[in-house]
Amino acid sequence: MLKGFTAPRSPLGAAALVPPPPWHFAGDVLAVEFWNDPDLSAHILPMGVELDKKRLGHSVALFTDYQFTGQNDEYLDPARYQSRSFSVLLDAMWKGKEIAWCPYCYADNDAALMRGWIQGYPKKFGAVHQTRTFPTSSPASAQLAQDTRFSACMSAHGLLLAKARVTLREKAERLVGVLDRRIVGRRYFPRLSAGLHDKPAVDELVRGILDHLLVTNIWIGKGELSFPEAYGEELEVLGPLKVGRGYRFSFSYSVNDIEILADLTVPDHG
Amino acid sequence: MLKGFTAPRSPLGAAALVPPPPWHFAGDVLAVEFWNDPDLSAHILPMGVELDKKRLGHSVALFTDYQFTGQNDEYLDPARYQSRSFSVLLDAMWKGKEIAWCPYCYADNDAALMRGWIQGYPKKFGAVHQTRTFPTSSPASAQLAQDTRFSACMSAHGLLLAKARVTLREKAERLVGVLDRRIVGRRYFPRLSAGLHDKPAVDELVRGILDHLLVTNIWIGKGELSFPEAYGEELEVLGPLKVGRGYRFSFSYSVNDIEILADLTVPDHG
Amino acid sequence: MLKGFTAPRSPLGAAALVPPPPWHFAGDVLAVEFWNDPDLSAHILPMGVELDKKRLGHSVALFTDYQFTGQNDEYLDPARYQSRSFSVLLDAMWKGKEIAWCPYCYADNDAALMRGWIQGYPKKFGAVHQTRTFPTSSPASAQLAQDTRFSACMSAHGLLLAKARVTLREKAERLVGVLDRRIVGRRYFPRLSAGLHDKPAVDELVRGILDHLLVTNIWIGKGELSFPEAYGEELEVLGPLKVGRGYRFSFSYSVNDIEILADLTVPDHG
Amino acid sequence: MLKGFTAPRSPLGAAALVPPPPWHFAGDVLAVEFWNDPDLSAHILPMGVELDKKRLGHSVALFTDYQFTGQNDEYLDPARYQSRSFSVLLDAMWKGKEIAWCPYCYADNDAALMRGWIQGYPKKFGAVHQTRTFPTSSPASAQLAQDTRFSACMSAHGLLLAKARVTLREKAERLVGVLDRRIVGRRYFPRLSAGLHDKPAVDELVRGILDHLLVTNIWIGKGELSFPEAYGEELEVLGPLKVGRGYRFSFSYSVNDIEILADLTVPDHG
Repeated sequence: MLKGFTAPRSPLGAAALVPPPPWHFAGDVLAVEFWNDPDLSAHILPMGVELDKKRLGHSVALFTDYQFTGQNDEYLDPARYQSRSFSVLLDAMWKGKEIAWCPYCYADNDAALMRGWIQGYPKKFGAVHQTRTFPTSSPASAQLAQDTRFSACMSAHGLLLAKARVTLREKAERLVGVLDRRIVGRRYFPRLSAGLHDKPAVDELVRGILDHLLVTNIWIGKGELSFPEAYGEELEVLGPLKVGRGYRFSFSYSVNDIEILADLTVPDHG
Repeated sequence: MLKGFTAPRSPLGAAALVPPPPWHFAGDVLAVEFWNDPDLSAHILPMGVELDKKRLGHSVALFTDYQFTGQNDEYLDPARYQSRSFSVLLDAMWKGKEIAWCPYCYADNDAALMRGWIQGYPKKFGAVHQTRTFPTSSPASAQLAQDTRFSACMSAHGLLLAKARVTLREKAERLVGVLDRRIVGRRYFPRLSAGLHDKPAVDELVRGILDHLLVTNIWIGKGELSFPEAYGEELEVLGPLKVGRGYRFSFSYSVNDIEILADLTVPDHG
Repeated sequence: MLKGFTAPRSPLGAAALVPPPPWHFAGDVLAVEFWNDPDLSAHILPMGVELDKKRLGHSVALFTDYQFTGQNDEYLDPARYQSRSFSVLLDAMWKGKEIAWCPYCYADNDAALMRGWIQGYPKKFGAVHQTRTFPTSSPASAQLAQDTRFSACMSAHGLLLAKARVTLREKAERLVGVLDRRIVGRRYFPRLSAGLHDKPAVDELVRGILDHLLVTNIWIGKGELSFPEAYGEELEVLGPLKVGRGYRFSFSYSVNDIEILADLTVPDHG
Repeated sequence: MLKGFTAPRSPLGAAALVPPPPWHFAGDVLAVEFWNDPDLSAHILPMGVELDKKRLGHSVALFTDYQFTGQNDEYLDPARYQSRSFSVLLDAMWKGKEIAWCPYCYADNDAALMRGWIQGYPKKFGAVHQTRTFPTSSPASAQLAQDTRFSACMSAHGLLLAKARVTLREKAERLVGVLDRRIVGRRYFPRLSAGLHDKPAVDELVRGILDHLLVTNIWIGKGELSFPEAYGEELEVLGPLKVGRGYRFSFSYSVNDIEILADLTVPDHG
């Protein structure tokens, strides 16, 4: 009897790339809000999802540095289960409801890649870095204080894809304008059978369910952001026409479920 | 209209992690045949697959160093599309037919990881290395000649999982005992919906179809192989009781199709 | 006029691998004290350095996760200047003074490697990881609290070289038994000229000078530590016969100077 | 008695980052000749080295994929001793003799980094890739034949620094215009003692001695090359105004000695 939430399934279930949910995450985020060109960003949306007309092109780029654990003390296996990721979220609408559409996502770890695909986040491998804060005061430690600057960057296969800076202005009680919409992604697993390469085995529009979301140490400030052009990527098409606020905060949440909005393999999926 | 064989689907289809088939592969292989304990290796087989009673426990470990291309000159993008991989193949039977079952597979590249999952190979991230040969004669270049030694190793997340050595004995015209069975794997994509974590969306037993398989520069010799024990892995359970021949050869093949043997999500999948 | 504290020296001095001192460091440390076999560890000492007879074999292993900056906002370039490192310090004596001898050191970053060699720490490339704490309470975040466990590991070229765990017991005001001796290393730069391969151009015994050392959030607990055997390494020779306390703390310090204890290229260097 | 050609020196000498010479190298090279702006490239030369007035600004960029061995079968330890590197060589003169000055050099391996510094090549960490050829004919394998294209790239810390393509035109018997001058570099090891940061302990102009140089499978064709601008690097200053031939060849050589041209720590080093 083989065990495992994902392949490779094995006698003990210890070899699986991803342990079974619930999954727990805790980390630090550097985020920048921006506006891209809605004439371009409209084309990144799947059927049934539309731009949010009240906030045309409003998006956020998130750089996340986090630790993961399942039920088996995975946080004590930091080489396998820490990860740094980058994602873009675009303000959109699904059947009249505000959502955040996730067109692109990158992470530096194989388990994170697979968790992403299972959650509908289309992760590719990316090297992600962000300035850190440490408890001692030092020129080497960015303090959570007014005017402190934090930088972040993301590269894939040696190409710089995203670069950000946030200059802190003030501490905030609540996170407004980022992570206040449910994230919608697309679970997609293709067929390899000849003639069926464009008929995926799985093609579902899904809405994430974050349990026990905690956000703390919220600082808001001035954001800077750019998406350099890179061969083999289309992230730059969503690049900022205008950049807004920057955010720096810490978070934790858990994932045990997902909401399936539509099965896109069915012609009339509405 | 979004395009792409895999996610992320994008307006131009250039962002997809994996380009559409046909896929072409060319590379070098170091392989070692071995016998593991059939009482243990029988437990790595999915329902319907059995050990080959004529060759109980006979397996092969392959270390592959290869270049990939699709239809868009991906071989000119070596940072993205070269890969090194490791896999274990176990002699088995499916409905009376000889097959090679692939329980574990590792690769060092995100596109390779996803191609593997699509083909039913349960890839995880691994760093794979093998001794190389170069056209000039030098102590630094392993020549394809009698008594030359080649080494290979595979590590994941800093843990050594496999180590091999092959001492060349003689050139061979044909590859016997390795890659002479069709490889069977399992396409597996889980559900995240609460209550359905053990009901995968995709669970198919599949048999690979290799087009235009060419094998050349075949050398056969003495093999050495070990699978050190490592936390979070079960590869060592399949470790060698006895080691046989070693192989070193170059290959190319293409993939455009896969044969679905059974849909394991259906109770009576036979 | 070429500029740069290290090579490559360039017109603007921006290309140098390491910027000029003062250097500032801030980070988190997981440390474990242990005792190795003094009959073995005595052999890792250079001429003139002796084991501390009051604490024969007493050593500490440190896993450090830190950010670096020089005078040019290097902390805003996290891809280049964050680093994780591992080092062993052995209680020893130099001319009657208590010192901590650094026989082995690993880091995951090229600038860290070179800074190490310049400071007399014999750094090699290693992948170092440790469990992290984050400000939100979550199963994924190790809280600084009694009974919390933190793990750390270090691998080089896919071989696990060190593994540690610390179970926190109590908060402490001061760090006792670790980092309370000045660290002594050896600046060593060989000659390549034929016949002079064993006559280094630089061979200095040096004592580190840490300015503005701050240590905070000190927790002391139970340590676990092992140095698995690995081909091409000798760290395991210094492995623990007995393991003592574990430590988890945050730090910052600066480096602008070094004390040269002896020029070992001179025969009578005393 | 501690042993080792480099630090870390250890009882057995097995821990040293770099084994003692002679060193042997074998590999494949993709190279592109180009001309940069002599008004700019003149500023990358150390005192005493001048541009070659007959070939002002003529340079070559080399991408190398190679295996290393010392006297201890290091080629059987491919995870540690294979490396890919990138270097720029600029046609220059030293006291009336034609030389190739090496201003910048990158490699993907710690032992390669240190060997470089010892040889006077100012190596930093870079990820280097080039299209490969394999013995079987396949769309995935670039054959050594007319009109075949090979690509190469080099990135450091996620920033693309160099990109090249060579389209093969014809096989050649001899390599002309590349590697036909002795390479001159600078061995440089700084002091950390306060007040002496600009007084290096080692600052030598050195000329490389390549023993048993073999070059084979030489193909010459059309080159393409660019050095994208990148923060923290100055390579782009040497970027091509004009690009010439491209080369693809295999090589081997050994290193056991170096010629010291001048001690630059001595004021009148002539």
